[in-house]
Order: sequence, then C-alpha cells, then structure tokens
Amino acid sequence: MHKLVLIRHGESTWNLENRFTGWTDVDLTPTGIEQAKQAGRLLKAEGYEFDVAYTSVLKRAIHTLWHTLDEMDRAWLPTVKHWRLNERHYGSLQGLNKADMAKQYGDEQVLVWRRSYDTPPPALEATDPRSERADVRYAKLKPEEIPLTECLKDTVARVLPFWNESMAPAISAGRRLVVAAHGNSIRALVKYLDNIPDSEIVGLNIPNGIPLVYELDANLKPIRHYYLGDAEAAAKAAAAVASQGKA
Amino acid sequence: MHKLVLIRHGESTWNLENRFTGWTDVDLTPTGIEQAKQAGRLLKAEGYEFDVAYTSVLKRAIHTLWHTLDEMDRAWLPTVKHWRLNERHYGSLQGLNKADMAKQYGDEQVLVWRRSYDTPPPALEATDPRSERADVRYAKLKPEEIPLTECLKDTVARVLPFWNESMAPAISAGRRLVVAAHGNSIRALVKYLDNIPDSEIVGLNIPNGIPLVYELDANLKPIRHYYLGDAEAAAKAAAAVASQGKA
Repeated sequence: MHKLVLIRHGESTWNLENRFTGWTDVDLTPTGIEQAKQAGRLLKAEGYEFDVAYTSVLKRAIHTLWHTLDEMDRAWLPTVKHWRLNERHYGSLQGLNKADMAKQYGDEQVLVWRRSYDTPPPALEATDPRSERADVRYAKLKPEEIPLTECLKDTVARVLPFWNESMAPAISAGRRLVVAAHGNSIRALVKYLDNIPDSEIVGLNIPNGIPLVYELDANLKPIRHYYLGDAEAAAKAAAAVASQGKA
Repeated sequence: MHKLVLIRHGESTWNLENRFTGWTDVDLTPTGIEQAKQAGRLLKAEGYEFDVAYTSVLKRAIHTLWHTLDEMDRAWLPTVKHWRLNERHYGSLQGLNKADMAKQYGDEQVLVWRRSYDTPPPALEATDPRSERADVRYAKLKPEEIPLTECLKDTVARVLPFWNESMAPAISAGRRLVVAAHGNSIRALVKYLDNIPDSEIVGLNIPNGIPLVYELDANLKPIRHYYLGDAEAAAKAAAAVASQGKA
C-alpha cells in the first residue's frame, strides 16, 4: 500500500482579496504561512516521512512546502518543482475580483468559469502584460505549452503527463511523496485517481493547507482518502472555497 | 566563459556561539538571514540569472539559498541538495566552543584542528549521540560514507566526486550555477579550482553570505574570481573568520 499526501497551498494574498489568481505568482499571507506550518506539525505528529517532495513553480505552493518541511525538520528533502503542477490558468480573469465578476456577470456565469469542466474563461492576449509568455521560468517551454486560459479539462490534460512520467513511477518504486500544489492541479489529480465524472467534479473543493492523504494499492488505485486533523474544520474550509464566487 | 557563484551560508547560531558545527544541523541567526537576503539583493542588482541551484542537506545552507532566491524572485529555481556539499565534519569537537578549546589546548592545536590540511580532529564514536549515523537523511549512504571526523583533505575527497559527476558537467553544458554551501566545502572547491597547494589553503577564509564569483574558461579553469559588493567588507569578514579559533 502506498500513501500520497496532497496539500493545497495556504491562503494567498489574492485568496484573501478574493481575486482570480491562476498563474499569477502571488505569495502567502501570514494566515497562509500559519496553515502551511500547521500542515507540517500535523504530518510530524502523525509520524509521516517522505522520500521526495513535488511542487509547482509558483511561490505560494513552494513556500507552503518550505514551511511544511521546516516544521517537520525536513528542509533537506529532495524537491521537484514543475510547471505542470501550477494552478489552472484563469485567462483574462486573472487579477479580477470574484465577487465583482459575479455582480457584473451573475453567480451562474462565474460558477461556470470557476467550475465548468470544459468551458474556459476568456483567454488572455499573448501580448497582455499579465501573460506569462515572457516569464523567464517558462523560457524553455514551447509557446503553445504556456496557456492563455484553461478549463479544468485543460488542466487535467497538462497535469497528467507529469503524473504518468514522474510521480506515478516514483510512487510505484516505493517512494513516499508529498505534493504542495493548487486547488485545481490537485482537483485534476483527484479526478483522475478517483475517476470522478466530469459532471461531478464541479462540486469538489480543496481547502487550503490541510494534508489530504490518499492510500493507493499496488496499481495506484485509491483504497481510501482522508484529511489529516479536524475533519469538521476541513469540511468547513472546503465549503468556504465553494462560496468564494458568489456576489 | 562560465560564471559560478559560491555563497557560504549566513551566520548560524553556532557561528554566533563560536562553537564547532560540522554536520550538526543548526539554523541561521537573524543576522544570517539578513546576510542571505543581502546576497540575493546583490545578485539581483547585478543582474545575475541562474539555471540551477546547489546546496547541502544542512538547513543553514538550504535556508541561505531560500532567502537568496526569494530576494531574486527565483524560488522556483531547480535545486539539488546533496550531502557531499555538507560542511567538514568536526568529529568530537562538534558542539564545543572554539575559544574554550583554545584555552584548554592552546591556539596552535586549535588552528591545526581548524586549518591543517591533513590532520583531522579526534573522531566521534559511531555510537555517540552526536553522530549522524542514525540520521534519516543519510539512511541510504553506506556507513563508511558518513564521516566521524574529517580534515580538509577528507572534505576535498568527498566533495570532488560530486563536482566531477554533477556540477562540472552542468557548467560545461552551459548551465549557470549558484551554490549555497559551507566554509570548508567551498574551500575544498576553491582549492581544487585554483590548484592551491596544501600548505597555503590554511590561510584561506570564506566570509558568510557574500557571493564569490568564479569566472571559468571552457575547460573550467578559473580566469578570475571576486566577491560581489563591498570588497573591504568581504576582506574584514574573512579576517573575522580567521580569528575565531583564538583564546
């Protein structure tokens, strides 16, 4: 039996401001730092050990990992940072306020943008200053690999190759993984692992900074999953994520 | 022409307490954090970009790297952490006060322990609670790879295979490296790069948290080297390191 631990980053400055973030590289708030440390304390108290950590190339996930590892006294853990674990790209909504958008376009349209499986928000122009096409960290990617918008289906399509080529083989080889990533890159993994239908994934929300443990069999099929710590707090935090896009 | 940037970690709690540290995993002081950030600000101001970062598996070096990268907004940089970049192992002196030892054994004996090229301090017992033989981060090493003491010659012998197998090929392939490591793992690299005789390396001291730039030719032979920032401050900091072992 394998264990895989997934952690959505702690609260970011744009979570706090209720803005669509996507690939914009905003940092953690003091609350987010505390959530990340608490994740580390929980993992330490439960005796978790890891062989390798995975994270995105966005600092809210990287810093979450660093704080988590520091609490476990495991700053030395080998770490892979990969753009395929980035948050879903939010297109031209990046930087805009979720409640403002709901007032302007209605709760339903914002829910479609936030949670529809296959309808992406309006795309950024490649020349938009908010586009990541000129960002040095993506310089070695093909332009078409750097999204201008994504629906969750697109996020699944770009996360899965990395799962298949790097993460799944590592788990199968017996390595214990901790993954600090984002609401939608984690939803992409969870949808794939639990084979959640397109129509049902809309209702799945991942709370910030609470370790989500997947127990996997030898074929990496989930046996069960659970949040570490206070289950009620995790459910409340997930519900709060669900309500962010309402006017 | 290649550029290689070496940074000795910022001041650690045991630098401050003037204790022999070696492989003991002590953290940075607030001054050490500030030195690491200053290194990042200098590198950013001078327009340095890197493709990969190297560090040890000791948190004073890892945290130095993290603070440096954060100041450069490069937390996403791929990072290799390797035990072969650890500080020289200080044997049974680990944890003891340098000035106390000088009072007890004399300045000369302490200088031999600190700076002799081929005389190691007295070894730790493998069963000593200070030994790293039971530390999970070294669990995959052969017992004989985990030192019980080292002279600088021993440190050179364990650093160089990693230089030859990982760092040098990366530089030759055009990758720009930043290395956050330790006084003696950096001295080992510098001795090798500049072909410094055994008898002269005793006089070389590396200040905390000041980027040391090596310009290397196509065969990785040094063309020149220099500290970034205030040259006088760097010389003063190096002199302070030299005087630590005096009663």
